[in-house]
Amino acid sequence: MTSFKLTDGLIAQIQQLIEENNNKALTELICELHYADIAEIIHELTIEEAVYIIRLIDADKTADVLTELDDDYRDKILKTLSAKEIADEVTELDTDDAADLISDLSDERKTEVISYIEDVEHAKDIVDLLRYDEDTAGGLMAKELVKVNENWNVLECVREMRKQAENVTRVHSIYVVDDNDVLKGRLSLKDLLVTSTRSAVKDIYIPKVDYVYVNDTAEDVAHIMSKYDLEAIPVVDEMKRLVGRITIDDIVDVIKEEAEKDYQLAAGITHDVEADDSIWKLTKARLPWLLIGMFGGLGAASIINGFQDAMGKYPILLIFIPLIQATAGNVGVQSSAIVVQGLANNSIDGQLIARLLKEFILGLINGLTIAGIVILVSHFAFHAEYMISTTVAIALVTVIVNAAIIGTFIPIFLAKRGVDPAVATGPFITTSNDVLGILIYFSIAKMLLGF
Amino acid sequence: MTSFKLTDGLIAQIQQLIEENNNKALTELICELHYADIAEIIHELTIEEAVYIIRLIDADKTADVLTELDDDYRDKILKTLSAKEIADEVTELDTDDAADLISDLSDERKTEVISYIEDVEHAKDIVDLLRYDEDTAGGLMAKELVKVNENWNVLECVREMRKQAENVTRVHSIYVVDDNDVLKGRLSLKDLLVTSTRSAVKDIYIPKVDYVYVNDTAEDVAHIMSKYDLEAIPVVDEMKRLVGRITIDDIVDVIKEEAEKDYQLAAGITHDVEADDSIWKLTKARLPWLLIGMFGGLGAASIINGFQDAMGKYPILLIFIPLIQATAGNVGVQSSAIVVQGLANNSIDGQLIARLLKEFILGLINGLTIAGIVILVSHFAFHAEYMISTTVAIALVTVIVNAAIIGTFIPIFLAKRGVDPAVATGPFITTSNDVLGILIYFSIAKMLLGF
Repeated sequence: MTSFKLTDGLIAQIQQLIEENNNKALTELICELHYADIAEIIHELTIEEAVYIIRLIDADKTADVLTELDDDYRDKILKTLSAKEIADEVTELDTDDAADLISDLSDERKTEVISYIEDVEHAKDIVDLLRYDEDTAGGLMAKELVKVNENWNVLECVREMRKQAENVTRVHSIYVVDDNDVLKGRLSLKDLLVTSTRSAVKDIYIPKVDYVYVNDTAEDVAHIMSKYDLEAIPVVDEMKRLVGRITIDDIVDVIKEEAEKDYQLAAGITHDVEADDSIWKLTKARLPWLLIGMFGGLGAASIINGFQDAMGKYPILLIFIPLIQATAGNVGVQSSAIVVQGLANNSIDGQLIARLLKEFILGLINGLTIAGIVILVSHFAFHAEYMISTTVAIALVTVIVNAAIIGTFIPIFLAKRGVDPAVATGPFITTSNDVLGILIYFSIAKMLLGF
Repeated sequence: MTSFKLTDGLIAQIQQLIEENNNKALTELICELHYADIAEIIHELTIEEAVYIIRLIDADKTADVLTELDDDYRDKILKTLSAKEIADEVTELDTDDAADLISDLSDERKTEVISYIEDVEHAKDIVDLLRYDEDTAGGLMAKELVKVNENWNVLECVREMRKQAENVTRVHSIYVVDDNDVLKGRLSLKDLLVTSTRSAVKDIYIPKVDYVYVNDTAEDVAHIMSKYDLEAIPVVDEMKRLVGRITIDDIVDVIKEEAEKDYQLAAGITHDVEADDSIWKLTKARLPWLLIGMFGGLGAASIINGFQDAMGKYPILLIFIPLIQATAGNVGVQSSAIVVQGLANNSIDGQLIARLLKEFILGLINGLTIAGIVILVSHFAFHAEYMISTTVAIALVTVIVNAAIIGTFIPIFLAKRGVDPAVATGPFITTSNDVLGILIYFSIAKMLLGF
């Protein structure tokens, strides 16, 4: 495709047009673009310039642009717009995007915006959606869907559907409900096309239909939709009444965010920061984890300090501290990452003992390999005494096995207690393994060298 | 939904039924389940048991099960099945899944399997798809799609469509081509419903259509589809002829795999291992990264060894080694993770200097905070001399700023040279920062304390 490429030249051109108030050229230039591309451009502009464009261009285009913007940036733009202007944008959006757009506004401003929405049904749906937590099926769903009553015939169906389909961008499935709006099944467009118009919906619908409850978590919904390859799933309330529909594009966002969160936790960053965030926001996201590492480092210092005798008698022991520490950290992160990912994919089941045994053997293999190399190097390069090399080697194997078992055990333990196991990765596991590694190292040295 | 739950009881029941050759009960039990659930069950069985089930149950059910299995496990099952049996499964699959299923077979066996496929058109399409690299648009696409000629009228269109739609599970868009099969645009089902049957396709199609080329990478396709919220995208060849279609469910898999790969690289695991893999495979995935860490540790040992004087004169310096090392590692991983993620989202652009400056300031803020705390602790807890505390503090700030800049610079540098920046995360960045951190620490100590 003629792929869009964001260039400095394009940004400069747009800024120039804004400065010249050349609205005609600006409109022409921007209206050609996809809303996702316009959003990329807007991210490079000042808030004032962004607001200028949003006021200039029709809401049917800019509403979608607003949904694509980063939350922080969008909130700044919304602050500048009047309630009436926001209502114009909201009117153009599907209910799920509309609710997302105004969900962060103050209650007062929310009420004001909603009062300006002329389509009462649309306003009702949005107000309804505002009730749900954004991390649940209710928070993801849209009210736009095509549903038919089981008591209708195909002809009535098609008539109703045409009416409803006007508000629905993409028809995935036609949902069948009873008189109480309880979900009974689904119909495919194909079925409707090939059946006689007199047939009753009751006789042709497919009763087997996947659905989720409004209060199911976004992660569960993502898991179900991607496991069963669904492009849309109906959402029901506690009485199994059909209340909305979730489409796969919203799930793609959930999956991406979930992956980013785990990645950031593993890297020791509080979730949800981006390279372009302010220094203050980045510091808040990074400093806490560094402090954990710092206390770990100070803990290790006090352990080493406790082995004063060793420091005096066998100073060469100290040069292997970085090796012990790095190995413990790396092994711990590897083990925990594999388990965290397995837990996320639901591919890890009960047998904790078997899994720990496997990690034990793995740790032993890796440990013996590394210990072997280290004995050779410490003998030939550092001319370490035989007992020192042996001490380092035994400590390494112990530290590796220990780190592997801890890295496996902690995430599983957290998951069983209902805590997100991803918090156990990164600095948390590295730090505890660092400190434990140093303690194991000096304890073994004390035992073997007897200082 | 009545969510499926894999239990030990269910597995035991199925194994029992297999042992008893109770085919009737087994068929009833399994045919009720979704293929994705059957795949979960099969993963818990031995290969012999899995093959028993696959031979027992109809190919229209088991073919989809096979596509859900892990590659390693599936290959073992395929080895046990005859070419004729594989052909029966392939016949039931869409062309993209069919090509994936047999792509890892030997050329000889591929030919044999294909010779058993009775539907020649289906066989042709599969052979065609086998030509493409699995990480390209060609490797992702299916041949099943609905296309109409721009010279037809709506009536001809609907007739043709019904014929084609039989082979297509979900109709997303109807693609419009010219006499040479060159992609011209698209039609929506809705448009067809509301237009007179006499209208020419030429007059009603939408010429604006996103597409990708067969050789575009899977990652690019995923980026375009998720950015523009597309549920399907047509694939064209070098002459812009329509050759296939990619649907969003395949892209969900690409996005998940991409995220897993980055996560594993950050955790120091060669990509594509799972908790249930064999010890040998896990060792191969983990040991190389541990060896990198080991050589880093030995490098650090030789640096410390080079500062023998300091070790004799100021042994207290040595107790802060873990602190320096842990901090350097953590900061490096944080910085690189943010940049790698920004690069993956295309949200990082040109201004390298600005970004490094930002990291410099960030490093300074974090560094000064941590140094402040460390000065207090080392004074009160370790009774360190004033000059020692100062040395540690200055070294910490320098190490943090250095790690932040390196962590930012290396991924950007790699990305510019066309290397996947994700390899720069994890043990690689940790190790280099460890070693550099120790070097900086002792160099600063030597300058300030003058040993």
